Formats: sequence, structure tokens, C-alpha cells
Amino acid sequence: MHINKFVTPEIIFGKNAIKQAGDACLRLGAKKVLIVSDYGVAAAGWLEKVISICKESHLPFATFIDVTTNPKDAEVANGCRTFIENECDAIIGVGGGSALDVAKAIAVLAANGGKISDYEGVDKIEKPLPPMIMIMTTAGSGSEVSQFSVIVDSNRQKKMTIISKTLVPDIAIIDPYTLVTKESALTAATGMDVLTHAVESYVSIAATPLTDVQAKNALSLVSTYLRPSVASKTNEEAKEAMAMASLQAGLAFSNAILGAAHAISHAIGGRFPMAHGEINAILLPYVMDFNFIAAPRRFTEMAEFMGIDTRGLTQREAGNAAIQFVKELSLDIGTPQRLSDVGITEEMIDWTSQTALEDACMITNPRDVTLEHVKSLLKNAL
Amino acid sequence: MHINKFVTPEIIFGKNAIKQAGDACLRLGAKKVLIVSDYGVAAAGWLEKVISICKESHLPFATFIDVTTNPKDAEVANGCRTFIENECDAIIGVGGGSALDVAKAIAVLAANGGKISDYEGVDKIEKPLPPMIMIMTTAGSGSEVSQFSVIVDSNRQKKMTIISKTLVPDIAIIDPYTLVTKESALTAATGMDVLTHAVESYVSIAATPLTDVQAKNALSLVSTYLRPSVASKTNEEAKEAMAMASLQAGLAFSNAILGAAHAISHAIGGRFPMAHGEINAILLPYVMDFNFIAAPRRFTEMAEFMGIDTRGLTQREAGNAAIQFVKELSLDIGTPQRLSDVGITEEMIDWTSQTALEDACMITNPRDVTLEHVKSLLKNAL
Repeated sequence: MHINKFVTPEIIFGKNAIKQAGDACLRLGAKKVLIVSDYGVAAAGWLEKVISICKESHLPFATFIDVTTNPKDAEVANGCRTFIENECDAIIGVGGGSALDVAKAIAVLAANGGKISDYEGVDKIEKPLPPMIMIMTTAGSGSEVSQFSVIVDSNRQKKMTIISKTLVPDIAIIDPYTLVTKESALTAATGMDVLTHAVESYVSIAATPLTDVQAKNALSLVSTYLRPSVASKTNEEAKEAMAMASLQAGLAFSNAILGAAHAISHAIGGRFPMAHGEINAILLPYVMDFNFIAAPRRFTEMAEFMGIDTRGLTQREAGNAAIQFVKELSLDIGTPQRLSDVGITEEMIDWTSQTALEDACMITNPRDVTLEHVKSLLKNAL
Repeated sequence: MHINKFVTPEIIFGKNAIKQAGDACLRLGAKKVLIVSDYGVAAAGWLEKVISICKESHLPFATFIDVTTNPKDAEVANGCRTFIENECDAIIGVGGGSALDVAKAIAVLAANGGKISDYEGVDKIEKPLPPMIMIMTTAGSGSEVSQFSVIVDSNRQKKMTIISKTLVPDIAIIDPYTLVTKESALTAATGMDVLTHAVESYVSIAATPLTDVQAKNALSLVSTYLRPSVASKTNEEAKEAMAMASLQAGLAFSNAILGAAHAISHAIGGRFPMAHGEINAILLPYVMDFNFIAAPRRFTEMAEFMGIDTRGLTQREAGNAAIQFVKELSLDIGTPQRLSDVGITEEMIDWTSQTALEDACMITNPRDVTLEHVKSLLKNAL
């Protein structure tokens, strides 16, 4: 038995939980807070909401919203400058994975100096970060609870994975009501990202009983609630379930890390503008099929968590049923089925495969992965 | 849907996890640590072990082990004096619930002054506490992860429940190997305490999806592994499972709080020297029977987590099966069956009932409780 480590932020979950953001900052000793978000979230009205909450708590603030999908190192540097120029001492992130990962990376630079690539890898951050409160509005990335920040190195055209316990926010606020503004395509893509987090952390070589319970529950929730959540912006039961699934999958992968789907998805997202959740949705069944022989019993268990009756099935049959379940789910909710559907071409495969092999998430994939494996997997998924 | 809040420490779980205690302290900035323990734990060799670990990490330390079962306010005051006189700035607790609750209470006084009764109730602690690392050696109280400290007020002969997020330790170390020194009677009593935590938090009115997954897993582990853990000091699989059960039940009740069994058990333990786990073991089936009508569906679910096949059973039958399961478990492992077996007499009932009604844990019991209810329950259990 290896040592299990498990880290989580304080979690505030529920309808209107967002209203506690101001007081939560004050409780952490904040005098002036930088609110980090992006244009989409601002357009949906959530930035304004957080600003009014800060005003109610008499908490001075500045804002930074120049954040893009697959966010870049330069955005982090700009955000850090805004933090320092405004003499902020705490950070609120509000949005999906992009805004929250940039918010965390700003905290790293504000406290530790240098450039964000200095902190790529595991446990490179030395000085403690300013208080961080993360408000999740997408039910996808799990960044609100994770020890991860993923930022693109523009020179190398590569996603850097920064992993450190200090990146776990002080407080995660998950308000399912914020999900009602999401377009169905985004709900679908981020929901498939949640599914990928749950599956990859459940079969990760770093999985522990503590991460298993979270991954299991997330799998079960996504299997039941992702379809109705994509179908309706206002289905509150489905939004709450998907917000909880995202949170629990985040707790699982933050502590168990991920696998080949994320390694490849990071490689693609570092160079091309494709949506992270869509790439994961395409790759997941191929990666599951590849990984099956590494953990056949775990695949039967995952099939059961998905609601499949595995009595009388062989492990291979149960594994296939789980893979088929994922394919049908993605078809039903309309996420892209093939890499060529989102603009990936055969010429991109060599570079992507090599880069994916070097990603930190590849280390915890349950099956050993070679360059030929990745190339073959990508060709199958084209 | 009400707001879910969930707080946990950083968790280090596994064989030889205890060896990380010294470096964990240094990581939290400790310059000199007070090691809080008790005589039983010292006799088992674990105090000496922690001392040698501190020496290896070149971490200066002082010790305080004058801690009794159902620990008293005066012990906390003495421990705080030791902390201050030795100019400590961090605390390691090593032991069961008594040692860890005293360690936490010392941290409260060291940072906030006054006497420990000043902090009775919810959220009365204002100043942040020194870094706390808790090493659990009993698989029972869950104190290593909880926001609770329970200390006897000697004047009022009453257990004070102190609840505050600041009481969640910075790091919880759970090393299942430490359980191999426990006598079987203590394994049995503390194991029934774990079961009581899981059951009471699962039916608590403050239960949330986040606490449910922990309570559910704890129930399932206790149901499978408590018997073999009592049967053998050296069954490592059972020790690991019970350590995990204790941890998960602790995460559940720390955030969902408890119910009538603990309220009554606190009342008894504040005045009389009975073991907390044994009292809970006796009370649990009676409290379950009383609470059944408040949450029939949850009782069917608990029966399933215990491994009972509930197909074809009515909710009442499933609830009865769960209660019967608890009775048979406690019979098998030899914990006392009736309050009179541990020295409770009819004369103690009036005082105990009144005191139990005022306990903080009564607030989250799923069924409204009157004085007559408690009296009748205690008479049945005599």
C-alpha cells in the first residue's frame, strides 16, 4: 500500500453560494481583491454579480478579464501586473477552467516572482500564495478544488501543467445556479470533461480509496444527469447534480492525477485552438479501450457506476459496455465524434504524439504508453 | 437545497505515514513543537516513535501526556502552560480522541487566551491557531479530521462540544500500522464509535451529498471489516479498512454533525467515567429505532451499504434489518449490550436526559427529541 495524500479546499456548495464570496474574502483577511474572469463570463453577468457582492461587503477590488480559452503565459503576466499595480492582496477567480487557472497562476507570480514557466511540473512553488477564492461557473474543469493550473507556454506552443498543493484554493464556491447561463454545447463539452476526469482518475495508478469514492460518485452523477443538463438550461436538479459531479471529479483527479486522454488533450490545446472538453470527449473511448487491459476489474466497476447491469458479463464485455456507454452519451449530447471534425489533420499527429508523451498526466496512465501507441490511437480517432 | 459546507485537513494515509510527521511540521513553519499524547499511547511506544521522528527532522520539541479518557478542562490549561513555557509554536497530537481533542484545545488557548469553556459551542474561536498535525492511533474518534473538540467542564460535570473550522488540523496523518497495538476491546469500542459516526451523519439533518459519500463508504467498510479487525491485531487489510472507515466517518460527521446517540453519550461521559465508544455501541440501535420514522428511505439505503439485500423488503423491514445488523455486530465483537452493564443506574437517567437535550449534537438529530423521549430511550437501554 502506498501513501495516500488528499488535499481539498473549504467548499461552499449550493444555490446562492456565490453571495458568500465577499464575506469569505474578508474572513481570509483580504483588504483588496483582484477579480479574475473572462469576457464570456462577464457577458453572462457573473462578473458584475461578484463586483456587487464585493461592494456589499465593502471590499475594495480591481478586475482582470483578458483571459482566453487555453490561456497563455502572457495573460498571467498581465494579470500579475494588474494585481501588483492595484496593491491587491487576495484573488477571486470567477468562471470556468481558463479564468480559474489564470487566477491561480497570477497568485503564483504575485507571491513568487519570475515567469509562470518557472513553476512547470510538480511542487516548484516555494512561497505561500495570497488567499484565493474560486467561483466555478461551468461544471467542468474542477479547477475550483484542484492543485492544478494549466497554462500555455507561447514560445514552446505547449500546455504547461503546474501541480502544487499551494494551488488548492482556500475556498471553492460552487453555485449551481450559475450554470443556467451556459449554452448547451458548452454544457456538453464541459460535461464530457467531467466524465473524463472521473474515468481517468478512477483508473490512475495514483488512485486511492479517498479519490475512488469521489470518482465513483461523479461517474454515477454524470451518467444520470449530463443528458438532461444539456437538454435544458433551467433543469435545476440536473445543474446541481452536474455541479456536484464536477466538484467530486475535481477532488478525485486533483489527488489521483489523470491519464493519456488529458496528456494528448493538453498537447493539442497547447498548439491549436480546440476546446479542451471536446477533444477529451473524442479521445475518451479510444483511451478507455487502450487502457482496458491495465485494469479490467476497474472497468467492470465503472460500468456498474454508470448503471450497467454487469451480472453475467465477462470483464471484457463489461469494459466494452462502459466504452459503448461513453460513445452513446457523447452522440446523444452532440459532442464531436472524430478529431477531423474539429480540424485535426494527419500532419499534426507526429508533433502531438511526441508532446503528449512528455505531459505530466501521462505518468499516472495505468498502461505504459509508447510513441507508437499514441500515434495509432490518434489515427484511429481521426 | 441548503448550502453545503465541507472542510477537511490535508490527509496523509498509509503504512509508515507517521514518518512524515517531522517534515510536515517543518513544512508548516514550526520551530518548536509540543507533542500531546497520553500514557496508554506512550506505553504502546508511539510517543517515543514521534519523538525520534522529530529528532531526525532536527525539530525541537516538548511533550505533554497528562491526558485522561473523557479529558478535562484542567488538562487543557496545563497543556497550554507547557506550550507557552517551552515557547512552542506548533502542535502534534498523537493518540485517540482524548489526546487529539486536548491537543486542539491547547492550540485554542495558546492563540486565544482565556479558558476552554469560553469557546463552547459553534464558531467562538476568533484568532487563527498554531499549525496542528494530528496522528490518529485508534480508528475511532475522527478527531484527526474534524472541526470538533470535546472537553469536560469539571465544574458543570458536562462535556463541552467546541465546533469551529479552525479546529480542523492542518495535516491529518493516519498510519494503519499504529492500530496493531490496540487491545481487541478498544478496537471493538472505537469501531462501534466509527459506526455511530457514519449512521448519525448519514441521517443528520445537515447531511449533504459531500458527507453522504463519506458516510456511505465508512458504513460499508465497518460492516465488512470491524469483525476481522477485532479478531486479529495483525490483520493488516482489516486495520487499513478500519483506519479508512474512521477517517471517512470523521469527514462525514465533521461536516454533517451527529445526533441523539452522541448527545446522550456526551452527557454520560461528562459525569461518569464510561468509555465513549461503549456507550455509543449500546445506544445506537435504540436511537436508530427511534429515528427510523424521520428518514425511512435513508434506513433502506444504510441497510444496502451494510450489505443487506433489500429487494422485496418494505422500508420498515429494511430499517429493522439495519438495526438488527448493528445489534449482531456488537454482540459478535463483545461490546456491552445494556447501560446497566457499564454501571449506569436508573437514578442517573433524569440528569442525563436533561443534559443530553442541551448538547449541540441534538440539533442535527433527524427526529425532534423531547425530554420524555430521551428518558424512555435510556430506560429501554438500561
